[in-house]
Amino acid sequence: MIYQILEKLDKKFHFEGAQAHCDIPCGIYDPSTAQIAALTVVRMMDLMADLAGGEEKSNVDFHNSMERYVTVKEEHAEKAKHEIRVIFGDFISDAHIADHPELPGLFHKIMKLGGKARQTADRENGVAFVEAINDFAEIFWAIKGVATKKAKAPYAPALETVYPDL
Amino acid sequence: MIYQILEKLDKKFHFEGAQAHCDIPCGIYDPSTAQIAALTVVRMMDLMADLAGGEEKSNVDFHNSMERYVTVKEEHAEKAKHEIRVIFGDFISDAHIADHPELPGLFHKIMKLGGKARQTADRENGVAFVEAINDFAEIFWAIKGVATKKAKAPYAPALETVYPDL
Amino acid sequence: MIYQILEKLDKKFHFEGAQAHCDIPCGIYDPSTAQIAALTVVRMMDLMADLAGGEEKSNVDFHNSMERYVTVKEEHAEKAKHEIRVIFGDFISDAHIADHPELPGLFHKIMKLGGKARQTADRENGVAFVEAINDFAEIFWAIKGVATKKAKAPYAPALETVYPDL
Amino acid sequence: MIYQILEKLDKKFHFEGAQAHCDIPCGIYDPSTAQIAALTVVRMMDLMADLAGGEEKSNVDFHNSMERYVTVKEEHAEKAKHEIRVIFGDFISDAHIADHPELPGLFHKIMKLGGKARQTADRENGVAFVEAINDFAEIFWAIKGVATKKAKAPYAPALETVYPDL
Amino acid sequence: MIYQILEKLDKKFHFEGAQAHCDIPCGIYDPSTAQIAALTVVRMMDLMADLAGGEEKSNVDFHNSMERYVTVKEEHAEKAKHEIRVIFGDFISDAHIADHPELPGLFHKIMKLGGKARQTADRENGVAFVEAINDFAEIFWAIKGVATKKAKAPYAPALETVYPDL
Amino acid sequence: MIYQILEKLDKKFHFEGAQAHCDIPCGIYDPSTAQIAALTVVRMMDLMADLAGGEEKSNVDFHNSMERYVTVKEEHAEKAKHEIRVIFGDFISDAHIADHPELPGLFHKIMKLGGKARQTADRENGVAFVEAINDFAEIFWAIKGVATKKAKAPYAPALETVYPDL
Repeated sequence: MIYQILEKLDKKFHFEGAQAHCDIPCGIYDPSTAQIAALTVVRMMDLMADLAGGEEKSNVDFHNSMERYVTVKEEHAEKAKHEIRVIFGDFISDAHIADHPELPGLFHKIMKLGGKARQTADRENGVAFVEAINDFAEIFWAIKGVATKKAKAPYAPALETVYPDL
Repeated sequence: MIYQILEKLDKKFHFEGAQAHCDIPCGIYDPSTAQIAALTVVRMMDLMADLAGGEEKSNVDFHNSMERYVTVKEEHAEKAKHEIRVIFGDFISDAHIADHPELPGLFHKIMKLGGKARQTADRENGVAFVEAINDFAEIFWAIKGVATKKAKAPYAPALETVYPDL
Repeated sequence: MIYQILEKLDKKFHFEGAQAHCDIPCGIYDPSTAQIAALTVVRMMDLMADLAGGEEKSNVDFHNSMERYVTVKEEHAEKAKHEIRVIFGDFISDAHIADHPELPGLFHKIMKLGGKARQTADRENGVAFVEAINDFAEIFWAIKGVATKKAKAPYAPALETVYPDL
Repeated sequence: MIYQILEKLDKKFHFEGAQAHCDIPCGIYDPSTAQIAALTVVRMMDLMADLAGGEEKSNVDFHNSMERYVTVKEEHAEKAKHEIRVIFGDFISDAHIADHPELPGLFHKIMKLGGKARQTADRENGVAFVEAINDFAEIFWAIKGVATKKAKAPYAPALETVYPDL
Repeated sequence: MIYQILEKLDKKFHFEGAQAHCDIPCGIYDPSTAQIAALTVVRMMDLMADLAGGEEKSNVDFHNSMERYVTVKEEHAEKAKHEIRVIFGDFISDAHIADHPELPGLFHKIMKLGGKARQTADRENGVAFVEAINDFAEIFWAIKGVATKKAKAPYAPALETVYPDL
Repeated sequence: MIYQILEKLDKKFHFEGAQAHCDIPCGIYDPSTAQIAALTVVRMMDLMADLAGGEEKSNVDFHNSMERYVTVKEEHAEKAKHEIRVIFGDFISDAHIADHPELPGLFHKIMKLGGKARQTADRENGVAFVEAINDFAEIFWAIKGVATKKAKAPYAPALETVYPDL
């Protein structure tokens, strides 16, 4: 609630800054792409752990699956980092940062967690990556004046995810 | 409602076919990426129409903007087509098609509408593209046993969009 | 022969539908790209089997080669699926499907075989992928009114491949 | 004929050099991808000329089409250059160059023609690009010991193209 | 000079933070890629202005060139933004930010200038983009303990550029 | 020194040939991108050797790291080959080759070394790849009339690298 009030004040006093102004500018920003990508990272970590702990497989099948999981994990961690950069770099204005001074630090933290999510298969770090992006999504939707809710994602790893309450 | 019942029967009698089995297989399919891309296509059509109808601009700025709109329209129409192909080709099984025999025709229609959305800037066709993908999303979520709702997208062009009701 | 006759009738009665109308539309469709990609998938499966069965190698060289084979297999299976989607989604019209009602099922089968070709290194599945794409190529060239022939591809794995008889 | 004889001698005396040794190495090289791409370049030039010379169109449709033709021309000219680089850089050995000393010059010429094909819409240059790649394909198949034939491509712009005679 | 001294203190007291730790981590970071990309953006702006102001050209050639300049400008502005994100997100640590508190603001400014460089052909903004990246490069090399110098880039637009003094 | 004199003569007598004429043409060519990529290849080889020789790691972490090193090595070897092709194919003219007749052979050698750098993790070959690209950079800058110097790269593997002396 506090966000919406701040946002309305913000809109009143910083009219230009509160406008979406992306690279087009088209105004279509949506953190869901980054959120799905981060969930996929955790899913790959789970599949990697299952594969490594599973019954013995033929050499070729083991390598085929392991490599594919690592590759998908790499791509989605990078995709999530890229999407967050687009929203932070193109949509978020100085006025937004004045209202949400935690944003630059949160952005930097997401980049670091995404890097670690590529370097390891540590599930705890993967979950922290998802949560930091949820925090970012929450601020984003607050800036847009859209209420949010939390729900389990409708697919594995079924972590709690922030959604706009449309 | 009918979908969920059919789906439960489907799960009972075609157990393997009803399992998600993507290219990994990881089970994370989400039509929202295609839906956002299709909305972006319509947004670009609107920006193109505005630009063409607007007051005179310097030549360079006009071309700079027009080309960027066309390029973004191209990329997002292709992205939407690709995402739908992944869900239709990797997730949708023969058992799903038996339950939803309209799926192959709907898939083919989406490909055609996406092609036209690249070839023209005809907004009516763009809206039809969004709607066909909404229809696809509705069937997809029904197969997954997740209820859906309709709401206006929280950004321009603010068309009615199918969301999972989580 | 039957295809050409049907095609001529088709051209006579469904003039618009029989026109090539790709995303440009430019009319340059050629299944050979998908066919070469599918042959490459089988080639990678053979190289993976050779590597796994070969004399012991240093750890680094084994991983270097295995990963490269898996990556190339992934890329070419996806490339073949993409190329077939372009022809099926952009070139194939409702009139073509009326004349060749097996097309939607064949398309769906190619997507599934391509998915399995990524998930495993099972050569039998790889060969089935090549053959299904050959079947698609045969129908494609029949629609275009171009005769076809079969010949072994001039490179490993030298599987029988459908070529236009120019 | 002379090529095949030279090639047999070459195989006898330069056994290692005559082996395919690509970046995998997998031995699947095929100039057809470059040839289709170069034909597409000429096709786009024709469509650009048609569009510019055609009856007046609405501004938006004209820009939409013109930009798409230019983009496709760019991509396919680059694709043709890339494919020829792969064959020349990975497959062609010093022994092949000793037997076909025109190869380095032909390679350099193809790069220049491809560059011009991007910079202009000059059809004559586009056709020269197709022909130089045909010359390259002829030498390539001769090195492989595969006979070639010439036939019109089965799609616009229907230029004469070198094919392996399988 | 002050940077090197601070950096030595930093190395002494924040040993872990001062280590390069990229996504691999491999330690190879170099802002020159972003700098070349930003110079290319300005070069395209100059070519666009020349083209628009030049003697009349045939319609097709004008559009061919204009579109290619816009596309290259788009790609290089995005490339510069991406490269700076990699260095800021992967290499720059909290300890670096403590020593150079202007970094988060400078990062955000570069993203905004890069966005504007895509949206317009305004040379002044393009030059500001180059200069902000120069500022970033200066801090980066100071953190690495490498002295820098300024020199005109050895190609158009020949703007003053920060180089490591090796 | 001799290069600069030859270059001046070249500029005097082959004025057109000495002009940069890239695919835009924009005149911004810089071998540093290829040089950084080749250094990265050697860095990955070192990391692969360290990993293989190191203390035992958990299965998942070993595969995660090894695959990422191989993938980065692949990408950067290809990137270096691509960048050298662009300079050789687009910038280098027949007049330049007349003045530097070793260029076509050096180009072909770089392609072969880059191929081997993908196929193996042999450091000696990786270093030869870096050195051949240094030789190419030296000739390039001589053609541009820019003096060069050698210095250790300011990051691992810290090999001697050719830089323009600005």
